[in-house]
Amino acid sequence: MAASGEFDLTIRNGRISTASDTFHADIGIRNGVIAAVAQNLAPGREDIDASGRWVLPGGIDSHCHVEQLSGMGVMCADDFYSATVSAAFGGTTTIIPFAAQHRGNAIPEVVADYHRRAAEKAVIDYGFHLILSDPTEQALRHDLPQLIRDGVSSFKVYMTYDRLKLDDYQLLDVLEVADREGALVMVHAENNDMIRWIARRLVERGMTAPKYHAVAHDPIAESEATHRAVALARLMDVPLLIVHVAGLEAVRVIHSSQSLGLPILAESCPQYLFLTQDDLDRDGLEGAKYCCSPPPRDAASQQAVWDGLLDGTLQMYSSDHAPYRFDASGKLPKGDQTTFKDMANGVPGLELRMPLLFSEGVLTGRMTIERFVAVTSTNHARTYGLHPRKGTIAVGADADVAIWNPEREVRISAGMLHDQVGYTPYEGRTVRGWPEIVTSRGRVVVRDGDLRVERGSGQFLKRGTPEPVLRQRLNGNPNSIMRKFFSQDA
Amino acid sequence: MAASGEFDLTIRNGRISTASDTFHADIGIRNGVIAAVAQNLAPGREDIDASGRWVLPGGIDSHCHVEQLSGMGVMCADDFYSATVSAAFGGTTTIIPFAAQHRGNAIPEVVADYHRRAAEKAVIDYGFHLILSDPTEQALRHDLPQLIRDGVSSFKVYMTYDRLKLDDYQLLDVLEVADREGALVMVHAENNDMIRWIARRLVERGMTAPKYHAVAHDPIAESEATHRAVALARLMDVPLLIVHVAGLEAVRVIHSSQSLGLPILAESCPQYLFLTQDDLDRDGLEGAKYCCSPPPRDAASQQAVWDGLLDGTLQMYSSDHAPYRFDASGKLPKGDQTTFKDMANGVPGLELRMPLLFSEGVLTGRMTIERFVAVTSTNHARTYGLHPRKGTIAVGADADVAIWNPEREVRISAGMLHDQVGYTPYEGRTVRGWPEIVTSRGRVVVRDGDLRVERGSGQFLKRGTPEPVLRQRLNGNPNSIMRKFFSQDA
Amino acid sequence: MAASGEFDLTIRNGRISTASDTFHADIGIRNGVIAAVAQNLAPGREDIDASGRWVLPGGIDSHCHVEQLSGMGVMCADDFYSATVSAAFGGTTTIIPFAAQHRGNAIPEVVADYHRRAAEKAVIDYGFHLILSDPTEQALRHDLPQLIRDGVSSFKVYMTYDRLKLDDYQLLDVLEVADREGALVMVHAENNDMIRWIARRLVERGMTAPKYHAVAHDPIAESEATHRAVALARLMDVPLLIVHVAGLEAVRVIHSSQSLGLPILAESCPQYLFLTQDDLDRDGLEGAKYCCSPPPRDAASQQAVWDGLLDGTLQMYSSDHAPYRFDASGKLPKGDQTTFKDMANGVPGLELRMPLLFSEGVLTGRMTIERFVAVTSTNHARTYGLHPRKGTIAVGADADVAIWNPEREVRISAGMLHDQVGYTPYEGRTVRGWPEIVTSRGRVVVRDGDLRVERGSGQFLKRGTPEPVLRQRLNGNPNSIMRKFFSQDA
Amino acid sequence: MAASGEFDLTIRNGRISTASDTFHADIGIRNGVIAAVAQNLAPGREDIDASGRWVLPGGIDSHCHVEQLSGMGVMCADDFYSATVSAAFGGTTTIIPFAAQHRGNAIPEVVADYHRRAAEKAVIDYGFHLILSDPTEQALRHDLPQLIRDGVSSFKVYMTYDRLKLDDYQLLDVLEVADREGALVMVHAENNDMIRWIARRLVERGMTAPKYHAVAHDPIAESEATHRAVALARLMDVPLLIVHVAGLEAVRVIHSSQSLGLPILAESCPQYLFLTQDDLDRDGLEGAKYCCSPPPRDAASQQAVWDGLLDGTLQMYSSDHAPYRFDASGKLPKGDQTTFKDMANGVPGLELRMPLLFSEGVLTGRMTIERFVAVTSTNHARTYGLHPRKGTIAVGADADVAIWNPEREVRISAGMLHDQVGYTPYEGRTVRGWPEIVTSRGRVVVRDGDLRVERGSGQFLKRGTPEPVLRQRLNGNPNSIMRKFFSQDA
Repeated sequence: MAASGEFDLTIRNGRISTASDTFHADIGIRNGVIAAVAQNLAPGREDIDASGRWVLPGGIDSHCHVEQLSGMGVMCADDFYSATVSAAFGGTTTIIPFAAQHRGNAIPEVVADYHRRAAEKAVIDYGFHLILSDPTEQALRHDLPQLIRDGVSSFKVYMTYDRLKLDDYQLLDVLEVADREGALVMVHAENNDMIRWIARRLVERGMTAPKYHAVAHDPIAESEATHRAVALARLMDVPLLIVHVAGLEAVRVIHSSQSLGLPILAESCPQYLFLTQDDLDRDGLEGAKYCCSPPPRDAASQQAVWDGLLDGTLQMYSSDHAPYRFDASGKLPKGDQTTFKDMANGVPGLELRMPLLFSEGVLTGRMTIERFVAVTSTNHARTYGLHPRKGTIAVGADADVAIWNPEREVRISAGMLHDQVGYTPYEGRTVRGWPEIVTSRGRVVVRDGDLRVERGSGQFLKRGTPEPVLRQRLNGNPNSIMRKFFSQDA
Repeated sequence: MAASGEFDLTIRNGRISTASDTFHADIGIRNGVIAAVAQNLAPGREDIDASGRWVLPGGIDSHCHVEQLSGMGVMCADDFYSATVSAAFGGTTTIIPFAAQHRGNAIPEVVADYHRRAAEKAVIDYGFHLILSDPTEQALRHDLPQLIRDGVSSFKVYMTYDRLKLDDYQLLDVLEVADREGALVMVHAENNDMIRWIARRLVERGMTAPKYHAVAHDPIAESEATHRAVALARLMDVPLLIVHVAGLEAVRVIHSSQSLGLPILAESCPQYLFLTQDDLDRDGLEGAKYCCSPPPRDAASQQAVWDGLLDGTLQMYSSDHAPYRFDASGKLPKGDQTTFKDMANGVPGLELRMPLLFSEGVLTGRMTIERFVAVTSTNHARTYGLHPRKGTIAVGADADVAIWNPEREVRISAGMLHDQVGYTPYEGRTVRGWPEIVTSRGRVVVRDGDLRVERGSGQFLKRGTPEPVLRQRLNGNPNSIMRKFFSQDA
Repeated sequence: MAASGEFDLTIRNGRISTASDTFHADIGIRNGVIAAVAQNLAPGREDIDASGRWVLPGGIDSHCHVEQLSGMGVMCADDFYSATVSAAFGGTTTIIPFAAQHRGNAIPEVVADYHRRAAEKAVIDYGFHLILSDPTEQALRHDLPQLIRDGVSSFKVYMTYDRLKLDDYQLLDVLEVADREGALVMVHAENNDMIRWIARRLVERGMTAPKYHAVAHDPIAESEATHRAVALARLMDVPLLIVHVAGLEAVRVIHSSQSLGLPILAESCPQYLFLTQDDLDRDGLEGAKYCCSPPPRDAASQQAVWDGLLDGTLQMYSSDHAPYRFDASGKLPKGDQTTFKDMANGVPGLELRMPLLFSEGVLTGRMTIERFVAVTSTNHARTYGLHPRKGTIAVGADADVAIWNPEREVRISAGMLHDQVGYTPYEGRTVRGWPEIVTSRGRVVVRDGDLRVERGSGQFLKRGTPEPVLRQRLNGNPNSIMRKFFSQDA
Repeated sequence: MAASGEFDLTIRNGRISTASDTFHADIGIRNGVIAAVAQNLAPGREDIDASGRWVLPGGIDSHCHVEQLSGMGVMCADDFYSATVSAAFGGTTTIIPFAAQHRGNAIPEVVADYHRRAAEKAVIDYGFHLILSDPTEQALRHDLPQLIRDGVSSFKVYMTYDRLKLDDYQLLDVLEVADREGALVMVHAENNDMIRWIARRLVERGMTAPKYHAVAHDPIAESEATHRAVALARLMDVPLLIVHVAGLEAVRVIHSSQSLGLPILAESCPQYLFLTQDDLDRDGLEGAKYCCSPPPRDAASQQAVWDGLLDGTLQMYSSDHAPYRFDASGKLPKGDQTTFKDMANGVPGLELRMPLLFSEGVLTGRMTIERFVAVTSTNHARTYGLHPRKGTIAVGADADVAIWNPEREVRISAGMLHDQVGYTPYEGRTVRGWPEIVTSRGRVVVRDGDLRVERGSGQFLKRGTPEPVLRQRLNGNPNSIMRKFFSQDA
């Protein structure tokens, strides 16, 4: 229907899904952007036949740790090259990892540093969240507002980890800035004192095997901190995002808060759908491979996370990719003597995030393909200020597309993955459905198992104001301090 | 980008929204179907410039009464011509009114009769739900299964009105058939005995003004019946749709049931967002104009309905258009002596349904445009087996499009409307935003305030199995009688 | 401390408990009434040494069927003699069985008839509730008000059983009378249509063993009807008592209603603490011995009933004694061909009610002795208008006392019981604690395993207005129809 | 019925109430203890005619500050003489004030010091709770266990006030000791950071009038901390008592936790039933008279506290008597320049606690007299290890009795009270019902408006293990850390 050569690339005959619709059409791409979605497009300079394939928006992984020094002082095994390559092979076309401030670090330098690391290595587009561990007056008044203007419009804060945690007073300070300047606060919600208290007693009794990590991180520590974070947000009438929701009760706290009309968003991850605390109880130190915070829970919590992703309580599904090797550089810093207190916290998942959910969610009939698109891509774009450029297949959007073969069976092994972690918690599982071709801004990034782009070809995404309107901010707290006493003097 | 003349019609330069995305593009239509969504389409045989306009899927009104004899024996003022014309002028391109069985009627004849009425008059596409008041063995075993195969795949049942109501035993019979044959049951949930009991006492005391209608239809009558309907559905593990939800407590009952994972769908209507019971308390019999069942409630219930539409508890927004004139043919059968027991129940709303919500929901910032599309169109299509043919702007879908001028202000009066009711409960209000051009299968139905199509040009929509997977049917009732004892002998 | 002979009877050196206190003292009884509770009372004409014994108020069993024709037309095996003797041997000193109206019966005659039956046989005091199956105008206007004045101030109504059930309209009529005249309505809450619907399908499939009784009486049938009964009471702002609560969900419905401030009372029975539906699944027809309505449920429901009795959701613990023999006169009307639809519904429990709870509740530490007194005696007296004459050990109260040996172990067998049922569902269990001496109005009724009083020596208790203030009627329903529209014209 | 002179004192012809029963009888007292409750007792050495009077257990005020240095460094206006005299005149016969540890204080000395203060001044019996602000290893291992053995078996901890607050880790330490050693932990639950954060902003804006105290102490600060305290208790499966519950949401948090079976106890005070935050908004600094923490809330919270006291969510009603004068020694340390941050927190209430509730609760019909006895006396005795010696009228109990004239009207003024505060927040109100005669261990303490006993005649009450079994500890947390991992190594 259009003259030959008009499109740089066409993707033809596929079954396209967005977060709301599924239909058959061709996609015409020009200058990296989707220019047409239509029947019978004329051939482009390059054409991909997607007959029998499902053509989906490329995934957005808005929670992953890349080339980052952890709160415990451990360096990630993945840099921006291996991480973005691994992501792309798993159907993800945008990542938003962290620029991590440690106490005493100046925020502008921290972010500049991560920009440098990413610019020369990334093969897909990326943004940053700031991990904020030191909300000084300088940070609150100058650095954070500037950072938001520079396109880093979300901050992650911790309620646990001695080196990172903010107290409630600091959290209120951060929420105030975020609200005023148009950023979104992401919270790691676990009660630090509870965990420390239990851990001390475990260690005193010699209970130091990996499985005790799950004991120390009791589900009550998660649900209490989640409830407290919601209370802080409610006091201020400010949106808030609870990351990596693991436990049944935390899901309930979030659901209740949303039922009251509060603008609370939430995210979960593959480890909370596909692993349990029993995985931490494997022989020797093997359990360390499954150790993350919060830890995987039990079958009832898995079900609650599934339900939350399906019914809208949880809007996003990320990896929380935390690439630590099963050796002295990561999981086993003290070799055989490593205790659950020593081992790096976190599991890899950048590449398998979407295939696991596609196989176990979509192809089992548990989740519609449209909901899959929403939780793996569209909702991330809307939440983090990337919509409508990213997160959908629509005219004008970046041509970030993953072409899935819904029939292909893949047996998972660490060896087939493109990260540098060296193990996967999903070793030996078989999934059905795989993203065989992946494009980023119309460039074919992955095809026939090969990487087709150069390092450094990914671009930084300057993000706008987050749009936490998946649930509108209607009721809020009519007695909000902010509204009643302070708003008038703005 | 395509040769001139290739499209029958293009809609150019508009701001398109679906239930998940908003973007700028042209739409190319061929043979009544959307063939392309793209930048810079070549001109079609006819072209509409939608610059500065919002291009939305035409609305689907899945709850309206047209050319129907009511349970109280009153004939609707609108036939299939006036109703579909009125709908089209309000941006709606599909209606699903009722084929109403009265007791003793044979179902095939009832439906055949409505087919005849509609075929020669409708100007937009339409389907039917069956109102089922007499679930005989013949109906359950033969007529309903055949009807579903004939594309009437949803049944409305009443828990109130002496001439229509089914008892719980009959409701279970109907749910069983619907589940087995792939239909959806819609329930009017009010407790008949409560209403009768209160009404008798009111009448005994001479309390017969229109406002006493709202007293007789106590919110507890609604919430009780809603809870009971959910219990019946839960016993059978069958999806169920609660129509015209009015009260705060009914919303809560539905929300709770969904939180338990039950496949309960729900709908509300403009009268529950924009009217209250105070409207029934106007001078003389004027209040009769606002009399419907359930009645409008109070501000807290309005808020609950808003919240429900926003947070997903309520998936659909319909009109429940019930066209009764404010004269002896409808609202005032006994003239000045008319009591609340005599007056026809129901209010008109086919034409104003979408403009009211667009103005008060979308343009106030309360509701995103994507959610507006979902609740006025897309969710109806999915729920009632019309997806993906209807309910979205996507390649392959029918070109049912409403082009809204978001700036246009309209002062509502009965005189400007195209139904035959003669009054509107929204008289004198001003709305912003209006659907100026409306297409149905690529035919321009309304433009420049004129109707452009012939009577009888609308088509019957043979609907498929409903898709109540907006909320998946995951948990259901593990102790379900159906599952445990009867499923094995299917 | 008092002159010899001053008291007719003393009970000395016991450990006395009321619903709030436990202390050591002597009890002095004169003219059937407790005249003194004191240290070191002078000897009476007769003295009982209760050293090492627990001296408790005699039990009140406010739910039992005696010498009654059931709704299914089966005659009870126990008359007022065997029933009251059996009650007394189990520590119960007051019963409130039913005077059962069947449709068409005149209420005054029904009650007169039960008076005759009881007067010549009862060995302990008794009152009556009316079972009301035919609320005619005559009944509502004349018979019930007169009955209340005659001391029968509580009515039981059924939501199930074809021959007994009232519809919602009739329930509202009864609640209105009860509220106006100062009576209490007791409800058997199960959804009749659900049970009939399931039962028909079970029978069609040949599933007729006793265990299918529990299938037909699905927990949802109970929780739905409980919710509906609460809604009816709430509409009228009238107190209501839900009898024989069996299932987890019914407990939750009641708890929720109480949390809203509604004056809802509730009762449970031993069969819901000590039996489960698995008991119905015994060999052959043996399960019929455990068949009652609602049926015993599962461990989770048992726990919910325990919790409800402990936390105040359930105020009373009765037997629902329904004495049907395991032969053609009761459980097996069709011999080997008996189906779950034929067998008489109900289990015996008059004699074992208190020993079971004493052993499993009090002596295990699960329940305080004061709470035991409250749920077996005091709360019945308050609820049913017998306080302060019955239900406590206090000066001025009738000397109805049970002296328990907390050490005595008893192995339960049907042969040791004093009813005429011939079996017990608790056969073979061992309980600890037994009421060895029982007095009624100062008369020693049971001692050394012997009955010491004559038939007909029990008295009719003319009851006053019930006192459903265990939970005050504070909030009720501010929109109550009764209050808003009808109260002013009283 | 007994020889003259046998009793030291009789109280004759009264209407006696306990927490469960009401009856008419005489009380015979010997050696300070109730020896007989009977009809027609022989005269004692002294006789009080209580005809027409209500004879109730003397009140127990388990939350009051006496002769204590506050966390803000202000000395109470009442010493043990004025406080106990004032209590007695209000019908209270036992107080349990605090021995307050400030950081750095050695616990044994702190308690010894309070013993000295009380021993020479108190006119009624008393115990102590320890305020614990410094839970060192020495305290946890040695001092607290010893203190419990010495009869101080409850500790109060603060979640707010910079000088007193414990963090969550310390709270876990304290809960562990309390559980192991048999003590009860009382918590002042407000989120310190929230209050500080709001207060700073208020002060920055010059919002320093007393009414801003209620703004700074937002209800969310209370409900959050209450939820967190419950989570800590739940983690450990340890009982906990939330003191001075003020807000609707805090009541709900407590109710929810109890519904889950957690052993959470709670208390409220007159200021939360009879004052609101509007009282803080009086002219000038007058509002300071109503300033306490948490502050009084609104009508909805008042209703929630009433409901909680009636339905059992709140077991106890105390005064939280905090005697600060309306001058530079207390409420106005900076005279006219005093801000809400400077003024001493707390209101007096020792003398009026019971008369206010008797008048507004009992005589209005809102609360039964038995529930009044429970929440003002019996439940305190059971909760704090004083039962059955205190808290009831029963044989063997201390003869602590208040004889109320239910007809007497009293107009409240500061001048009529016996404390040294100089003002009352209830100035000018009229109450009905007054305790005219009060006895403590059989000694007439108050009669005819006169004090009849000597300073120092009150006795220290060595308390036993608290009995938090008003709600049994049934379900707890089956995953409790304590149970699963640590209990086995006890």
